Amino acid sequence: MSKVVKFGGSSLADATQFQKVYNIIKSDPERRFVVPSAPGKRFKEDTKVTDLLYKIFYAKTKNEFHLYFDQMKERFLDIIEGLQLDLSLEDEFTIIQKALENGVSEDYVVSRGEYLNGRILAAYLGFEFIDPKDVIFIDQEGRYDVKKTDAILSQKLSETPYAVIPGFYGSLNDGSGKIKAFSRGGSDVTGSIVAKNGKVDLYENWTDVSGFLIADPRIVKNPDVIETITYKELRELSYMGASVLHENSVFPVRKEGIPIHIKNTNRPEDQGTLIVESTCHKPTHVITGIAGKQGFATVMIEKDMMNSEIGFGRKVLQVFEDHHLSFEHMPSGIDTMTVIVNTEEFIDKEQDILAGLHRQVHPDSIVLESDLALIAVVGRGMKASRGTAARVFKALAKENINIKMIDQGSSELNIIIGVRNCYFKPAIKAIYREFIVNE
Amino acid sequence: MSKVVKFGGSSLADATQFQKVYNIIKSDPERRFVVPSAPGKRFKEDTKVTDLLYKIFYAKTKNEFHLYFDQMKERFLDIIEGLQLDLSLEDEFTIIQKALENGVSEDYVVSRGEYLNGRILAAYLGFEFIDPKDVIFIDQEGRYDVKKTDAILSQKLSETPYAVIPGFYGSLNDGSGKIKAFSRGGSDVTGSIVAKNGKVDLYENWTDVSGFLIADPRIVKNPDVIETITYKELRELSYMGASVLHENSVFPVRKEGIPIHIKNTNRPEDQGTLIVESTCHKPTHVITGIAGKQGFATVMIEKDMMNSEIGFGRKVLQVFEDHHLSFEHMPSGIDTMTVIVNTEEFIDKEQDILAGLHRQVHPDSIVLESDLALIAVVGRGMKASRGTAARVFKALAKENINIKMIDQGSSELNIIIGVRNCYFKPAIKAIYREFIVNE
Repeated sequence: MSKVVKFGGSSLADATQFQKVYNIIKSDPERRFVVPSAPGKRFKEDTKVTDLLYKIFYAKTKNEFHLYFDQMKERFLDIIEGLQLDLSLEDEFTIIQKALENGVSEDYVVSRGEYLNGRILAAYLGFEFIDPKDVIFIDQEGRYDVKKTDAILSQKLSETPYAVIPGFYGSLNDGSGKIKAFSRGGSDVTGSIVAKNGKVDLYENWTDVSGFLIADPRIVKNPDVIETITYKELRELSYMGASVLHENSVFPVRKEGIPIHIKNTNRPEDQGTLIVESTCHKPTHVITGIAGKQGFATVMIEKDMMNSEIGFGRKVLQVFEDHHLSFEHMPSGIDTMTVIVNTEEFIDKEQDILAGLHRQVHPDSIVLESDLALIAVVGRGMKASRGTAARVFKALAKENINIKMIDQGSSELNIIIGVRNCYFKPAIKAIYREFIVNE
Repeated sequence: MSKVVKFGGSSLADATQFQKVYNIIKSDPERRFVVPSAPGKRFKEDTKVTDLLYKIFYAKTKNEFHLYFDQMKERFLDIIEGLQLDLSLEDEFTIIQKALENGVSEDYVVSRGEYLNGRILAAYLGFEFIDPKDVIFIDQEGRYDVKKTDAILSQKLSETPYAVIPGFYGSLNDGSGKIKAFSRGGSDVTGSIVAKNGKVDLYENWTDVSGFLIADPRIVKNPDVIETITYKELRELSYMGASVLHENSVFPVRKEGIPIHIKNTNRPEDQGTLIVESTCHKPTHVITGIAGKQGFATVMIEKDMMNSEIGFGRKVLQVFEDHHLSFEHMPSGIDTMTVIVNTEEFIDKEQDILAGLHRQVHPDSIVLESDLALIAVVGRGMKASRGTAARVFKALAKENINIKMIDQGSSELNIIIGVRNCYFKPAIKAIYREFIVNE
């Protein structure tokens, strides 16, 4: 058994947090590969080290530069001192400063937070330090080069019993050796790639929360934590706006069937959330999570006997595609078809699309509305339990919330409903109450 | 004010029925144009005159021919005698027999029921008899030639105070004068065309039922009658399998905004069902009707991140279109898209379509199921009343009926749900109970 442990910025913000991380890692010899982020905020008004690095890169005056550079150094020196480590980063700071004077890339500069933090953590733990620039390769678009990375990284990890591999960056896959950062997802992606190539059994993702919440805490007060979630559910909630793991970061480990365990560095005793490919564990509740997004527009196309026109739906979608617009859903009644799109993307192309629809399918009428919110109720437990839809709609009816759209395909893993924007929060609260509080 | 009155076959099956029809027409001088069907069944085991005419046309022996020809004559002679009319149809019978010997068309023969019944009814009422062959023109495909018909028929009707115009047929629009029947909808279409061109205010459609029923009486015992229904609702229920008026028959009058009143010849005092373009009348119940169809298949396509592929949905529909298959609905979840099609149409093309889908959109998986029934809950009242969806789903949950699919577009005039075939009848019963019995 072996594990990858990835720690977020707040888990490594200062020496006290480093000590917690040390205890977590040392308490379990299976925790072999450690992926650190750059130091995050120590308190609400604090600045993340990565943000300081951006400020350094974009500094307009020498004074400005030195102010932020010193603040950045201070953060690392404070940690080293707090841990009473016998480690000097002065050479490193000089190299970075020189590189900046010579006009190095943004990616190089902003990735130094992870690099330096990794250096400290490796020294503190007594683990080998692996610089991702030697083992993780990224293309120009910021995506990881699977073939090259997997060949080199898996070899390296198989020879290394314990190592720290900083998150967020690697080097360009063109052989230039230039530092390149991931476009999105950052250190979570690194953790995922290391988990895959380290052939580990578990990817622990340590953060400052005790797992994923069933609903957005800005909408529902103190929502429960999800105990076990499948990748599919995670992806669905994430797609519908839940701020869980970045979706891109999930795919490398998902392919390998490696579970991800979301844990809280500040409360390691909490159960956290386990993300798995599939599970026989009965979910705690019928629904696993609720998520939603606002800002959708509906384009309702009416035409008598449209169902007898072969190609009608395809032509409608062709018009949207011709204007490079993707659609979210296409519920249909009898003689009506509604295309749901992102309002912001739609608004500029609105008149062109309307003209295109009139030309292509000669509708009797087109009705536009632009204040739709979509809410997804997600849960593998829905398949086994009848009446979930009834409970969702009863909960909304009780609050006098009118449903503008319903979409449930035969996957039975989610129900998607559309309500007016003004009912977005009340609807989520009502569904949470029905399935979690009253259950 | 003037009205078209169309009478179905059972309303004109014998002399007693003719007397009821007489009383109905004579009780209201606005009933100017009368469209009769051929005599229908007088009792359950009886044969309709139109069916006798088919037997005559397809008779294989002289004996067979004479047997059915005499039965047909008998039907008309019985009516004439029962009404004590001074009318002889002997010349007509001779003409038909001669025409048959000379090898006339099927359309000519089977339309003689309406023709002869129209002759009798005109004589009985003292109305002018208009032969549709002179005023209604039909193309080779059995559709009415709008331009030619409207020009000639409207002129004729404007000069005629009271007339009988038999239903079901006209003549070919190629100038040949050959008798041609409508492909579908029969006398209802004639009534509709006469209503339009007679510029009447109401189209009364007299049958042997007291209007349209909220649900199929073979499923729900003694369902209530729908008092007022809009064309749109009618079309939706009819599309979803309710045996109401044939949908084609509705379009000519609908365009003119002429209401249709469905009445019962045997119970003229019953209110019947009024079909209108739109109405401010509050519906009696939140829902106007329930209808459904069995025999659908679902093709569920799963692919991670499909939503980010512009053109995904269009490509899926293109595959179905390339195989000349129309789809009923396309509900979508997150990463899943389900295409619902008629099982019978789908089954022959199944493997080609699956191969096409794999080639075009490279899905992660495709799941087929083939025992879906679709049920539509239709009602203009749903727009104003919240919680309709909740009540539908609660009613189904109470009966332990699992919902495989839900589709509600933003028209808010109908909700369509998919259940397994075995739940088709229980679901309709449950919905009827919730909205009609318990209301």
